[in-house]
Amino acid sequence: MTNIRDIARMANVSVTTVSRVINKHPYVSEEKREAVLKVMEEADYQVNLTAVHLSQGKSHLIGVVVPFANHPYFGLLIEGIAKKAVESNYHFVLIQTNYDKEREQEALNMLKHKQVDGLIICSRILELGTITEYRQYGKIVVCENADGNNAIDSVYVDHYQSFLSALEYLYEKGYRNIGYSIGRDTGSNSYFRQQAYRDFLKQKEIPYHESFVFTENYNLEDGQKVVDLILQLSVKPDALLVTSDVVAAGIITACNHTNLRVPEDLAVIGFDDQPIAKMMGITTFEMPIVTMGERLFQQVIGTTSASHQQLNVTLIERNTV
Amino acid sequence: MTNIRDIARMANVSVTTVSRVINKHPYVSEEKREAVLKVMEEADYQVNLTAVHLSQGKSHLIGVVVPFANHPYFGLLIEGIAKKAVESNYHFVLIQTNYDKEREQEALNMLKHKQVDGLIICSRILELGTITEYRQYGKIVVCENADGNNAIDSVYVDHYQSFLSALEYLYEKGYRNIGYSIGRDTGSNSYFRQQAYRDFLKQKEIPYHESFVFTENYNLEDGQKVVDLILQLSVKPDALLVTSDVVAAGIITACNHTNLRVPEDLAVIGFDDQPIAKMMGITTFEMPIVTMGERLFQQVIGTTSASHQQLNVTLIERNTV
Repeated sequence: MTNIRDIARMANVSVTTVSRVINKHPYVSEEKREAVLKVMEEADYQVNLTAVHLSQGKSHLIGVVVPFANHPYFGLLIEGIAKKAVESNYHFVLIQTNYDKEREQEALNMLKHKQVDGLIICSRILELGTITEYRQYGKIVVCENADGNNAIDSVYVDHYQSFLSALEYLYEKGYRNIGYSIGRDTGSNSYFRQQAYRDFLKQKEIPYHESFVFTENYNLEDGQKVVDLILQLSVKPDALLVTSDVVAAGIITACNHTNLRVPEDLAVIGFDDQPIAKMMGITTFEMPIVTMGERLFQQVIGTTSASHQQLNVTLIERNTV
Repeated sequence: MTNIRDIARMANVSVTTVSRVINKHPYVSEEKREAVLKVMEEADYQVNLTAVHLSQGKSHLIGVVVPFANHPYFGLLIEGIAKKAVESNYHFVLIQTNYDKEREQEALNMLKHKQVDGLIICSRILELGTITEYRQYGKIVVCENADGNNAIDSVYVDHYQSFLSALEYLYEKGYRNIGYSIGRDTGSNSYFRQQAYRDFLKQKEIPYHESFVFTENYNLEDGQKVVDLILQLSVKPDALLVTSDVVAAGIITACNHTNLRVPEDLAVIGFDDQPIAKMMGITTFEMPIVTMGERLFQQVIGTTSASHQQLNVTLIERNTV
């Protein structure tokens, strides 16, 4: 294959001149530029864009770290990221971790080794401190409250406040045995939700029931698991906050196959406002997930110092409370 | 930042030797290798992996072209691709096209410019002939029947045969006004399905009703659109093949809000066997989508000449026929 040295020889110019023409550097005479372009065309020379980016110290790639690519919540984040990436002429490398520390570490190494220009970490299992150390190699943006961190950018919703308002809403409607369902019980978003739940119970002087907290629920199928557990309880929750509409949909569908009526026996509030919530009339907290994705991307390619953006959620009342 | 020349100087060896150590080239004496590694460690030298890959002529990145990243069908394909990519120490660049020709062309240019080592095209709008021209720059795999094409690999299910057996199944159950719902009405998979539908009608001597074909349906919300159209028809279909379980779920949910009973007034067969089909008891054709994703990845990094793999589908009988 023709390389940059061949082009230089054929155009009778230096390799540096060819490189400058490719990189659109201003200090090349019009005469030489034309000679180089003519030879490149005649030789059907393909610019190795990776080489060009390398010479500019940029890959024009952003790493996007998600635990699961095939999940509606992360799907919407990716949609927002993709939208802005296209507009900015960037592409992104999807790094699916399954919450495996080694794979998250690999994403950090990609940043260190300049394979990507920046990292968007949609959800993580590694310590924020560990991640912050890699900030020296490129921009890092997280999708959680990292306010106070001067190195890493963040876009997030206030999970403490939104959980608390959902609990207050259920309390006002007369529910007293309120439980919740989340994905993993670690991670900062889960921590804030748990904190809101504890504070709410304390304030209302309601005892904490460990059996009212359902963890590791991500998908439609997990709804059945939650309902099976509820059916085994002697004291059952009368309302559930469910941190994903698809899990809420699974719970409601599973209830329809039992004598548990929604909302009479079990009220359900979902999160996200996914299409399925609209279809099934699920009361939910609308999360601006696509907007979050867009903002995450804008931050990662931005040149400003670390910023922290909080987005608002909205309660959408439907038929499950 | 320390570069390869600094390392060579500090270790008192040539730049070529440092390069050989980094690239794990065998022709380096143990003594020199140790000297270089020691200096690299002392100088906290970060290998620019992009540069290493470039010198090897490889990016270790695969481009994955999808019309929509946030769709359950493509989500499952990505899941399969991601699974095998991790095992093979590759990453992939997700290229979302919205069926825009320019964006597909951009993916082909990424292959041409060596930004990716190969391309997996999950669905396309460009001509297969145009795509084939780019095969000279790297491997290209498509997710449709490309049997007979000697350049491009393919993994696919036989959409003609699976559509025909679904139609035969409904016919045997006594349905005579069978219609179908698809995504776009162009593309080779849609062509084979349309062909099966036409051939079936001809063979059974059933007239073709244009109003029984519903196009541009991708998501849960599109189910409502289909039902609204059916309600306006004087002669209504009594059964529908729906090329996505999520659309089928949307149709069934929308029917529940009308006087159309499923399956008494309208039988529904979905495709894919997504979790929602199981939850809602939808009769469906199980498609091995995750397996397809795995195979697509194995083909794109494979070194064999073009292969074409056909995967089988299975009818899963539930409650909607």
